[in-house]
Amino acid sequence: MNLWFTEHQTKSVSLSLATARLLRLENTGFQELAVIENPELGRVLLLDSVVQTTTKDEFVYHEMITHVPLNTHPGPERVLVIGGGDGGTVREILKHPTVQKVTLAEIDERVIAAARDYLPEISVGLSDPRVEIRIGDGNRLVRESENAFDVVIVDSTDPVGPGEVLFSRDFYAAVFRALREDGLFVAQTESPFFNADLIARIKRDLSSIFPLTRLYLATVPTYPGGLWSFSLGSKKHDPLALEKKDFRPLATRYYSPQVHLAAFALPPFVREIAGV
Amino acid sequence: MNLWFTEHQTKSVSLSLATARLLRLENTGFQELAVIENPELGRVLLLDSVVQTTTKDEFVYHEMITHVPLNTHPGPERVLVIGGGDGGTVREILKHPTVQKVTLAEIDERVIAAARDYLPEISVGLSDPRVEIRIGDGNRLVRESENAFDVVIVDSTDPVGPGEVLFSRDFYAAVFRALREDGLFVAQTESPFFNADLIARIKRDLSSIFPLTRLYLATVPTYPGGLWSFSLGSKKHDPLALEKKDFRPLATRYYSPQVHLAAFALPPFVREIAGV
Repeated sequence: MNLWFTEHQTKSVSLSLATARLLRLENTGFQELAVIENPELGRVLLLDSVVQTTTKDEFVYHEMITHVPLNTHPGPERVLVIGGGDGGTVREILKHPTVQKVTLAEIDERVIAAARDYLPEISVGLSDPRVEIRIGDGNRLVRESENAFDVVIVDSTDPVGPGEVLFSRDFYAAVFRALREDGLFVAQTESPFFNADLIARIKRDLSSIFPLTRLYLATVPTYPGGLWSFSLGSKKHDPLALEKKDFRPLATRYYSPQVHLAAFALPPFVREIAGV
Repeated sequence: MNLWFTEHQTKSVSLSLATARLLRLENTGFQELAVIENPELGRVLLLDSVVQTTTKDEFVYHEMITHVPLNTHPGPERVLVIGGGDGGTVREILKHPTVQKVTLAEIDERVIAAARDYLPEISVGLSDPRVEIRIGDGNRLVRESENAFDVVIVDSTDPVGPGEVLFSRDFYAAVFRALREDGLFVAQTESPFFNADLIARIKRDLSSIFPLTRLYLATVPTYPGGLWSFSLGSKKHDPLALEKKDFRPLATRYYSPQVHLAAFALPPFVREIAGV
């Protein structure tokens, strides 16, 4: 059967993936969840018909959202992930030997179930004894926490539906309070080509809360425009101040000390968006 | 009318663009040429139903294929472009004040005509008195040239059809002879995600001909996978040896001295492909 899935990445740009198998399709109450299999990208997790991750390229996103903040912290022990139910970010966090506890706040337990069933190489870390899974509202968990985490990672869907609140200034202020005195925070913040206004607004909001903010980039093939932004707010440590000895040795396919630093070399058009 | 153009980027991944207007469609004898208008990407040049360039993102590709090699050369005077009939690479080359002559070898004069008619902001440089347009086989022009150019840029289509010969070892050896004693060469060499074998083969071929070879990356949203590779062969100058004073000031939107150096920070999976 010549079956294709289509994501409308923007109003006038679509990505279509040949679908060799439809492995799961359900309405979770929060969103429509699907797992498909594509001959080249492998297994693909879809939420509300938007590609979340694929087994072919997931390493880019998960390594870059994790190792940039975790290597920037000299000894991260407690890490909070909001969203990220597929487990890829947790898997990467567990590569850092100082980490004692990872809290995963995922609102939709069916995402975790689908990842365990169909994406074992991504969800593998979820069964680690250092991981606590909290099914519920990550926003509320953050508001109830104070001085609790060394690193907070917002591994969310796009800023529509369940993910929207995670892009608000109020939420960022709550994250600041939830962080320890030298903690830092990273969120995925969409495409510089298609979401420039959002990135600019987030940069302004973070700058009004955190003493240090940075924007960095990575290329995720299956996200709109490929070029993807991550926004970082830090109480103390600067990801650009790392020296060779500060980088923990990590088994990675995209991230490296050189790529870490290069990710902050923003093209002029991105500097203009961010006002830096 | 709800009209969409679809490019089959790979066998199982497609990109579709809403087509507000079909501005040109013709068979040129070499290929099928079309220019469409998309609400977000602007005007889009298509050859054999493959996106060549869009007015929204063309600056990434044209700046990165041009300024990396031209800034690496201390005083480029004569530059050859093979392909590149849209004129974007020529426009960027002309930003370097040492350049006296740009030769554009384009096999299909209809590409130039379409760019002049529909992509004026890209083709603007083609009317500059320093530019000589040679309609014909770039491969033959290279074979007839010796010690003639400071920089050769291969701004070609994919390695199928008219562009195929421009990816051969014989062609690279001819480029070496066509270059002056401290000349260098750059070619677009496809996606590390989808064309790993091609990139590996080109790296081996170039290493057997040029004393110095380098691979670098940029993110072109409308190319398959976003992440795009450029392969460089140099007789003398190293793009990684540039100091602050070596970078000519340029009006650019993607390229900068920081981006120049960061483009060579290859993710481990790309280093593995290239064997570096």
